[in-house]
Parts: sequence; structure tokens; C-alpha cells
Amino acid sequence: MAIAKKMRKFVDGGSMIRKMFEEGARLKALYGADKVFDFSIGNPNVPPPENFKKALLDIVSEDSPNLHAYLPNAGLPAARQAIAARLSREQKVPVEAKHIVVTCGAAGGLNIVFKALLEPGDEVLAVAPYFLEYGFIADNHGGVLKTVPSKADFSLDLEAIAKALSPRTKIFIIDTPNNPTGRIYPEETLAALGALLSRKGDEFGHAIYLVSDEPYRKIAYDGANVASPLASYGNSIAVTSYSKELSLPGERIGFAAVNPKAEDLDYLLGALAIANRILGFVNAPSLMQHLIAHLIGEELAGGQAACVDVGIYQRKRDMLAKGLAEAGYEFAIPEGAFYLFPKIPASGGITDGEFLSFLREENILTVPGAGFGAPGYFRIAYCVEESVILGSLPGFDSHGIVRRLFGPDVFHHRRAHLVPGHVKGRAVLSRLCIGVFVGNRVQYRRENRGKAGDLIHRTPHSGHDQDVATGNQDQPKEFLIPLSGKGSCGGNHGACLGAEGNYLPKAWQELARRRPGKLQVAHSVCHIVVGYGQHARRT
Amino acid sequence: MAIAKKMRKFVDGGSMIRKMFEEGARLKALYGADKVFDFSIGNPNVPPPENFKKALLDIVSEDSPNLHAYLPNAGLPAARQAIAARLSREQKVPVEAKHIVVTCGAAGGLNIVFKALLEPGDEVLAVAPYFLEYGFIADNHGGVLKTVPSKADFSLDLEAIAKALSPRTKIFIIDTPNNPTGRIYPEETLAALGALLSRKGDEFGHAIYLVSDEPYRKIAYDGANVASPLASYGNSIAVTSYSKELSLPGERIGFAAVNPKAEDLDYLLGALAIANRILGFVNAPSLMQHLIAHLIGEELAGGQAACVDVGIYQRKRDMLAKGLAEAGYEFAIPEGAFYLFPKIPASGGITDGEFLSFLREENILTVPGAGFGAPGYFRIAYCVEESVILGSLPGFDSHGIVRRLFGPDVFHHRRAHLVPGHVKGRAVLSRLCIGVFVGNRVQYRRENRGKAGDLIHRTPHSGHDQDVATGNQDQPKEFLIPLSGKGSCGGNHGACLGAEGNYLPKAWQELARRRPGKLQVAHSVCHIVVGYGQHARRT
Repeated sequence: MAIAKKMRKFVDGGSMIRKMFEEGARLKALYGADKVFDFSIGNPNVPPPENFKKALLDIVSEDSPNLHAYLPNAGLPAARQAIAARLSREQKVPVEAKHIVVTCGAAGGLNIVFKALLEPGDEVLAVAPYFLEYGFIADNHGGVLKTVPSKADFSLDLEAIAKALSPRTKIFIIDTPNNPTGRIYPEETLAALGALLSRKGDEFGHAIYLVSDEPYRKIAYDGANVASPLASYGNSIAVTSYSKELSLPGERIGFAAVNPKAEDLDYLLGALAIANRILGFVNAPSLMQHLIAHLIGEELAGGQAACVDVGIYQRKRDMLAKGLAEAGYEFAIPEGAFYLFPKIPASGGITDGEFLSFLREENILTVPGAGFGAPGYFRIAYCVEESVILGSLPGFDSHGIVRRLFGPDVFHHRRAHLVPGHVKGRAVLSRLCIGVFVGNRVQYRRENRGKAGDLIHRTPHSGHDQDVATGNQDQPKEFLIPLSGKGSCGGNHGACLGAEGNYLPKAWQELARRRPGKLQVAHSVCHIVVGYGQHARRT
Repeated sequence: MAIAKKMRKFVDGGSMIRKMFEEGARLKALYGADKVFDFSIGNPNVPPPENFKKALLDIVSEDSPNLHAYLPNAGLPAARQAIAARLSREQKVPVEAKHIVVTCGAAGGLNIVFKALLEPGDEVLAVAPYFLEYGFIADNHGGVLKTVPSKADFSLDLEAIAKALSPRTKIFIIDTPNNPTGRIYPEETLAALGALLSRKGDEFGHAIYLVSDEPYRKIAYDGANVASPLASYGNSIAVTSYSKELSLPGERIGFAAVNPKAEDLDYLLGALAIANRILGFVNAPSLMQHLIAHLIGEELAGGQAACVDVGIYQRKRDMLAKGLAEAGYEFAIPEGAFYLFPKIPASGGITDGEFLSFLREENILTVPGAGFGAPGYFRIAYCVEESVILGSLPGFDSHGIVRRLFGPDVFHHRRAHLVPGHVKGRAVLSRLCIGVFVGNRVQYRRENRGKAGDLIHRTPHSGHDQDVATGNQDQPKEFLIPLSGKGSCGGNHGACLGAEGNYLPKAWQELARRRPGKLQVAHSVCHIVVGYGQHARRT
């Protein structure tokens, strides 16, 4: 194996968010975007501000000879100037153009900051739940991520932080509003944090840099003020992105702003520009730098705000929160960002992974809290169409549906070992395994990774998106339930409509009625395929 | 000092190319682009192909909801598809979309490839002269750059390479056409290289990956064919950028293509996508990915080629080569790319740095060969306006001018120690120190970093772009030579026009005649300021 061992481990592990995102893209390509409820990634669907497109067209049309040329590593002077002016005004920190490095989004910004600061073995301390990329970024540059839990309400636990800071801590990183909790840290807390970092820095004999990761600064609800970490402490660097506030995540544009009071200021600024170069960013994309300079310039001149309509996100938050509360989920209402971070329902005794795979079988893609250092929770990125939120709510509630159908022990049943051929008890639903019937084959709508003993293993398919022969009399462990009058599955599937098929028709027809889009396919015959099985409890 | 030690060293060292580039930008901002001959960086000035702008406007106008959204880490499927189809056709290697990772330019591509492959201490072997960023990129990911010289004509020296490959060599990197030499490696050489890497890999018991850095593939002259390194060896990865072939260097778009025969193919592809994510690129800029898919699509369908007009570069090459040959420089005619890599004239016994600073005093910015592992050479990036090439030629020849003025030993004079107040020999020109006279102050047009003993140290300024008092009778070591009839330096500078001022007027007036733009300033009085001095030879 010639691949770096560390990278091999990453490949084997993968990023849950990205996996879900890419799985979502795959499913949407296969079945249509309206059939998949993808809450996995913060890929904003709110449009950029109104003046955005005109500005972009104008800039491209202008025939400026250097529009697509290399820029200084630290960025286009006009962009740095505009960014500094706006930041100074908003955060009351006298940042100048020279304190700004324009970056390839916040991820690019964090990489150059960590590269500039970390010696091998230096520690980065983050507050859990935290954005799971911090660990990778620290590791990229020889650092080690340590975490300290927040309080139960996701506020900063300063006592715990004081204990967790070590002589090896070079960076303390926070994000406010927080991803994934939506918590905004109040000004008093940040002031106390600043004092703590200052005291600990003196104690350890070196500066601890506060890195404020703030891509959600503008996404704050109910008129909330997002206090400035930069204003609370001199050795501080704000890193952010226009991905969310301008809905441009794919364009990779953001910045790092160094507090003018930071130690080693000139070295730090020089190191950030060099890191931008040698890590391969070279400069943040030039067209977008021109655009940012233009849009912020308009805002500073009293024109259109360079920000999306946050009210749209607030409506989505409220809609999702209402639905989840009705379904019995427990969660804190987000003050900002666009994530909801509910507890995983404890009933049923299932693991986090089982719960999420259950949602996945409802075509609902979310991310486990464990990836954010918070097992027992999961993250819903609600920066999606309202129709996705509304469409998903029955699925979020399907736990309830299933329990109503089968009684409270259904999840225990699901976890029970299947003893093939050994029939005990009644047949139970093994999965909400919904497929579309095409001709005489079933095309599965999602992967069906079963564990040993899961009934799904008994269906005659072995991979993703394969056509699966059905109606085969050798496969009595499947049945098909007709859901519409559009046609039938053909003479050779008469058995599908038999006694077994009538086992649960009413409940399933109810489900189909509530989610009509789910079963619309281009073909003449449409069924829900339900795997079922016979099981024996092992205790 | 809290900044990482390594980064501090980089800040102290800096990149000569980037320093020059940023110095050039500064000078241009101060004095106008037409007064500075900036050959420091490969910032193409040839326009993108004709259909480029329309395509960009069309794509932005289309109102596609996901135009600026996050993309899969490996890239937009349509872009990967188009890139793979074109590469397969051109290089006869059956690359598919899945073998492509769209990257933030070639620098981003090299970073993810090195990140994916290198274990700590692994070696990257490059052929000198080489692109000086390789060392930084290897170091970013725990690797170490080793170099092996090319032959005198800059072709690959396979015997030397065979000796330089070590059991720690994980990557062998080449670029063809080469930056900075313009050399294209022939197919037979690449085949022999592939066989060598294969044999050495067997000997060492692990694959050596051939990384082909090919941003200049399309910039080849006189109909030259650029043979494919990918086709010569299975364990190979091509990394490239559209910076040059589409003139988009600021937009950060390129790709890495993995040979389908490479060992650990799937791991490698997975690792590249993850590296793209965790290094902070996340995805190459999305709008540009849509654009690339469109432009390559047009080309593959038989429409406009997705490439700049290479004939423009060829004309520039020819113009520069003619001028430099006439001035007596020695160099190989570039077969591709847009750099000329002449020898530094050995006459005068000056150091490389002295020669380049001499050019710099002519407002000519170039980069020393030492940065490319080739001392005794310098690089001229001729991707500039033809007027810049033409305007620079007298400056490139000023070595000759100076020698004609002072005889062949002028550089020896310049290096001689100055013994203040101890007058021996005749006064000599210490520098081609050209400034503009504004009111009663001289504003220098460039920095004048002198060494101890340089006469320039005796002029009453101490930094860059400072106003310098002149005409002060306490400063008899300067004199001013009027060059135009536009005015005079005022009564208080009468001495400037005296005997000393007439010391070299004819030669200087000739220089001014040949470079009329150089002295056009907005102010009423305009002089060339020439520092001079009295020196004593030390041997």
C-alpha cells in the first residue's frame, strides 16, 4: 500500500456528512430531488441577495483585463479594504485591510491559520459539540484536537475550559452561532473567556490564540446580536466564509481577520499569506473577490445589504421545530445558524446508528451527533426547501407509526437475531424498505446495508441500486402491496396480492396517502416492497 | 514567538517570485503599469478563448439553483466527465470521470496528491531546474524534496535519476513543458523513465508514483507534440490547471487525473477527494467547474477549442529571444510554456543577485535561477504585453550601455569598497538610480537596497519610496542631470546643473530618448538622479 496510512484510515472512515451528501446526490439523481429529504450538509438553498446576480454579470461584462488573473496571496486590495471596513464597523475592532487575508472559504481560512500557528504536537482546544472538520485541520498541520464539553444547554463551561487548557494549547477555537447547536455565546461569556485565555497564556508563558470560526455570524434569529469574540481578546483571529451569508458555498470565498492587537502581528500576517500560497490556494478565487468588494461596497454605501434574507431560514427553523416537537423530539431552539440538534429518542433502546438508519429508510439523511463529539444527538441541516421539511415530517414520525403498528417492542424485534427457517412468533416489519416496481423487477431506492440477521439480507439482492428479481416463488419472504389503481404487477405476480399482501395494507395505504410523491414513478406498476421475516428472540 | 518556527523562516525568506510580483504590483500602482517591466510571475495576459465570456455570462444568467452550491469533493460530475473524455482522447489513456478530481488549480492538485501519498520523511524527487513550490508542498505533508540535475540542455538525465532514486522516494515529479526552461521531454525519454521507475519500484518493493505537473501542456510552440507522461507509466498522476490554457490563474481551477492502472487506485481516488475536503479546498470553485464542463463540451463537440491562442505567446517568445540574443544573452529557445531561462552574463564578475538588482534598477523584475535549483540563470516570464517586452529591451541591454560608458570594469568598480572622503580614481556610476524630482524632493521609483560600501548609502534616504532631500549642499555626492526642457529644479538646485551635472549628459539623454515613458511624471520638474562616488580599489 503506497497511500499514506493516515489517509487510508480516513478513506476507510470517511466523513459522515460528506458520505450522506454524496449519497443524497446519488439518490436524487436516481429518483428525483423531491423524493429525498437530505438534511445532511449545510448547502444553503436560500438565494443570494437580489443585487448579487446583476453585480456578477456586470463584473464579468466589464472586460477588466485582470479579472481572472493571479492576485496577491493575501487578496485583492479592494476586497480586503471592504471586508476590513465592514468588520470594523460591525465588531468595533479597528481592523484594516492589511489585517485581512481573503481565503478559500472558512475551511481554507482555518487551514492557513492552523498552518501558521501550530508546531508539531501543539493542541487545538474546541468545545463539544464542535464542527467535525477541526480535528482533520489540526492534524493536517501537525496539531492535535482536544475537546471540552459545553454545558447541557450548549453554553460555554468556563470552569471546564480552564481545566482543559494545557501548556500545549496553542489555539482555542469556537464558533458562534455554533454548528451544530445553533447556540450564540453572550458578550459576558466571551469577555470572561478572553480574560481566562489571557491569564492562562501568562501562566504558560506563550500566547493562546482564540480562533473564532464564524460563518454563521449573519444567520441569527429573532434579532439576536452575535457578540464579537475578536472584541473580547487581543490574540484573536476571526475566520469566516461568505458561503452562508451570501449562499455561495461552492465558490470558496471567505477571509481571516487578525486582531491588530495580536502578538507577532506582522509575522502572523506574513505567515498567513505564505500559507495561502504554499497550501495551494494561492489566492481566493479572483472573480469572487471582485464580487465581494462590490457587494460590500454597496452595503457600506447604504445600498442593499450583502446578506441573504435570514427570515427565510427562520421560517424553516420554526416549521421544522414545530413538526419535531409534535413528533416528540427534544431539542433546543437554535438562536442562529441553520441546524437543529435534537436528542435521539431513547425509547426502543436502539443505538444512534440504528435510529439514523431508520430515518434513512424514510429517505431522510441526517448526521449523527457522535461526529460532533456529542453522541445521543443528531444534526438536521434545515437549509433546504420548505417542501423538504414538510415532506420529511411523516418520516421523522415513522418511529411512532411503526410503534403504533407493531407495539413498543418493534425495535427489539429488529435487533433480534434472525434464525433462518426457524419460525417463531409473528412476522414483523424488518425495514421500511420502500422500492419501486418496474416491470417484473424491483429497483431499490436506496442502499440496504443490513447487519447479519437483518431480514433484508434474505431478499435476493446484494448491492446498491441493483435490480432485484421479485415475484419468484422461491422468495416467499417478500411481499408486495399494491398502492394504486394504476395497474398490476402482472400475472406472474399474482401471489403478491395474496394473503400476505393484505397483511398491512391499510396502514401502508395511509402512509402512501400522506406521502403521495414518494411512489410516483414513470412506470406502469408501482408497489411498496416490504421485507418481513420470522425471528426468534435471543433473550 | 507563537508563530510556527517553520513559517517564521518562510516569512523571513519569502518567495522570490511572489515578492517580485507584489513589488511589481506596488510599483505599478505607484507609477503606472507601463513604467514597470514585470516578468516575475506567470500571470498570463493573453485573453481566454473567444467563447469564454459568453459562456460565463450564459451560465450566470441561467438561474440554475445550484450554480454556487457545494459540490461533491471530487467535482461536478459533468466537469469530471468532460475532462476525462478530453484527456483520454489527447493522451490515449482510458481515463474515466471517476479517475478525475477537480482541484483548485495545479497547486491545489499537487497538495492533495502529496497529502494522499506521503508518509513522514518520504522523498519527492524533482529534476532541477524545477518549479520552486515543490519543496514547500512536499514539506506541507511531511515529505522532503530531493533534486537531481538535468543535462546541460535541460533534458532528463536518466542515469543521474537512477542514482538519485532512493528507497524513500515515493514521488518522482516532472513538468513538461518545463517551468522554467521551456523544455518538452520526448516520448522515448518518458518511456525510458517509466521503465526506470517500474524497475526501481520493484527493487524497493513499493510503487514510485510519477506525478506529471502539466499546466503548460497546451502552450507548445512550432507545432510541438507534448508526449504524455501518463501514457508512459501506470503508477502516474497528471496534475494540471486551466490557469494558462484558459488564462484563468486567479480562478483556481484544474484537476488531478489518476492513471486507471495505478496501484491502490480506489484508495488513491478516495484519499484525493478527502484531501480536497480536509485541506480546505472542499471543492474547486463551482462556477468555474460549470464553465469548464461547458467549454470542453463545446470543444469535444467540434466547436471552439478550449484554449488560448498559443500563437500570441510564440510571437512574444520570438520577440524577446531576438532582443536578448542581440544583447548577447545565452539561452535555449523554449519549446513550450512562457518562460525564458537565460544564463546570467558572466562578464563583470558580479553575483546573480547583483545582476538581478541591476535589472531591477531598470524596473525589470525577473526571478533568480537559484530559486529553481539553477544558480547562474534567471527566469523571464514573458506572458506580458508585447510593449512590455519591447520597452524592457534597452534595460536588458543597459549592462552594455554601462560598459560602453565606463569601460569593462564598471562592475568591479561597483563592488569596490567605498572609502568615504578618501578620493582616489575617478567617480563612477554606482547605480542606475533613476528617480523623479518633485518640487525640491526626489521620490525614488524603487527600493534602493545597497550593500555596505555602495554609494547609494550615501544618499540621504533610508528606505523605500521615501522623499529624499536633494540639492542640499551638505550632500555633494549627488548630482542631477536635466533631461528635458520642461522646467528646472529651481534656484536652490542650481548646483545640479553645474559641472558635475554635465558629466554624463549625452549618454543619459540618449537613455531618456530611448525610454521616453520612463520620465513622464505629473510634476513640472523631472530629472534623473544619479548617485556617484569616489572609490578606492581593494586589489
